[in-house]
Amino acid sequence: MKTISAQRLRDVGVRLFTGCGSPQPDAEAVADELVESSLMGLDSHGVIRFPEYVDLALSGAVRVGTRTQIVRESPATALIDCGLNFGQVTARQMTDVAIAKAQTTGIACVLSINSGHVGRLGSYPQKIAERGLFGLAFVNATQRGQFVWPFGGAAGRLATNPLAFGAPTDGDPVVLDMSTSALPEGKIRLLLQQGKQAPPGVIVDNQGNPTTDPAQFYTDPRGGLLPLGGPFGYKGFGLSVMVEIAGGLLAGVASSVDHPQHNGFCLIAIDPDMFCGRERFRELVTDLVRYMNGTPPAPGSNGVIMPGAPEFANKRKRSIEGIPVADETWRLIAEAGRKVNVDVEA
Amino acid sequence: MKTISAQRLRDVGVRLFTGCGSPQPDAEAVADELVESSLMGLDSHGVIRFPEYVDLALSGAVRVGTRTQIVRESPATALIDCGLNFGQVTARQMTDVAIAKAQTTGIACVLSINSGHVGRLGSYPQKIAERGLFGLAFVNATQRGQFVWPFGGAAGRLATNPLAFGAPTDGDPVVLDMSTSALPEGKIRLLLQQGKQAPPGVIVDNQGNPTTDPAQFYTDPRGGLLPLGGPFGYKGFGLSVMVEIAGGLLAGVASSVDHPQHNGFCLIAIDPDMFCGRERFRELVTDLVRYMNGTPPAPGSNGVIMPGAPEFANKRKRSIEGIPVADETWRLIAEAGRKVNVDVEA
Repeated sequence: MKTISAQRLRDVGVRLFTGCGSPQPDAEAVADELVESSLMGLDSHGVIRFPEYVDLALSGAVRVGTRTQIVRESPATALIDCGLNFGQVTARQMTDVAIAKAQTTGIACVLSINSGHVGRLGSYPQKIAERGLFGLAFVNATQRGQFVWPFGGAAGRLATNPLAFGAPTDGDPVVLDMSTSALPEGKIRLLLQQGKQAPPGVIVDNQGNPTTDPAQFYTDPRGGLLPLGGPFGYKGFGLSVMVEIAGGLLAGVASSVDHPQHNGFCLIAIDPDMFCGRERFRELVTDLVRYMNGTPPAPGSNGVIMPGAPEFANKRKRSIEGIPVADETWRLIAEAGRKVNVDVEA
Repeated sequence: MKTISAQRLRDVGVRLFTGCGSPQPDAEAVADELVESSLMGLDSHGVIRFPEYVDLALSGAVRVGTRTQIVRESPATALIDCGLNFGQVTARQMTDVAIAKAQTTGIACVLSINSGHVGRLGSYPQKIAERGLFGLAFVNATQRGQFVWPFGGAAGRLATNPLAFGAPTDGDPVVLDMSTSALPEGKIRLLLQQGKQAPPGVIVDNQGNPTTDPAQFYTDPRGGLLPLGGPFGYKGFGLSVMVEIAGGLLAGVASSVDHPQHNGFCLIAIDPDMFCGRERFRELVTDLVRYMNGTPPAPGSNGVIMPGAPEFANKRKRSIEGIPVADETWRLIAEAGRKVNVDVEA
């Protein structure tokens, strides 16, 4: 295990992605987003992805340098063709568009087609919150895998369909970023690699039998990931359907057909200035955080943790101490570097 | 148990509410919404509420006949003071405003202050869906009770904070209407009345000990209702916080202060014509329903049930067969009638 500074990892990322032919600002956006995820402790969406992203660019699956095209636009809406550039590049642009429009109209909705993997979903509502607005995001995925079985069903029909939102406070914003399945697929993969069991109620084998063994999920044919809610999984399923409609269908992309794009991305920004006012809103969300954090802890608990709080704590820690990178991860990053004539040790 | 036609119950409701001084169109709106809930099998939000609503009107807690006031408005947004009229009356007006605005701007957000109890939340996104649009709704409650304990906390700090959405198909719309707690409070009350146990993971006693006995929830001080998700209850809590922010804070209403209004109501309407087009959207949602309903059933299950499907099935059945009304409920309705000189048997 190495510990590497965020600055150095960002620099390596920028060199890798420009090495793939990505323009400098695009390479910086992708590196920023991946390093930020690592800083926040969300390692599955962090620098561990550098080699995969290099391969995607080299294979042409990600089309580096493509410019977004506006398919349809109004003062409060935009449908944007992301051209299969890195999803972080286009999701950031969509975020800027949503903020600018919402500041004019009070609410804006921006949708993608042909978006790559947008990475940490919470990043975009967080940026909206950092500007004093309220942000909501929904992402579905077609090609990347419908792992999730509808409640009552025995076949994968939905991706983990996450949703995220962000709201401003006087301190860290409140940022919820959650899959609508019981756990995200990456967590099951991690448990498999660590040789650990999954909690009950999360996965079933490919016959639909409950299991806690991650290997029983990664069989061929695959097992199933269950919707959030356990016995009330119809709620997690319902949320997943909502995300599917917002993220995919509204933009014109069918769920039952395999499409080349990776993520359907729906972003909504709301400007409190059309309602209670930005200052009052920030004050009220700050007050809400205080109210929640002031709840007496439940027996055996350390107390209430607001959405996003652990990630911001990680970021503060890792910004000072550096980011832990497994030797194998670093070896794979160096190997990716050799494909594009980048010496990551330089 | 009696079985009474929807038409007769609606007529009784209209006479009761006009008897309280409500203008005819308002009385019709409230009666329509309550009878519709009964038709759909959601009896806790149905005609069982007639006597309570009469009492609210007679006590002045509901201010019959009040006109809504626009506090702030833009082409895509409105903040509406509902003046504590019946929540169904003002929520319907807000729905019309949201639809009209979204048809012009592509997306609209309408928020309330001083809204009464809006009843069945799914009703409003359903109306949006019936016009071919996509609707989202969030409701919080301050005064009516923060029954829900934040994940990790041991005190009520949130209401059951439901969310709802609706999307159009060639048949019944898809309508999700769910509390962000494991179960809505009304379900716990029903279990208590029926002498049944709650499922595990739903309630705790006022010391925070897990229990399945509804009586342990209705102690003084009250026990706690847990957020959706069981061991992943931080997700249900996060959703509840999001609903709190959208429903209450954006409109300027604090969570930690007791306010006179009953429901904070946030409604968002999106017009697919600014994205994939209404016809395409309806086709895609229809296709999604088919795709989900075509999932092979899980072991021991009858298969996948789309959000809202059981309620529409109930409505078809009860529209023909009538609505079952318990003798005690009918007695209480008749008693409410005598307070306002209405003979419900006439």
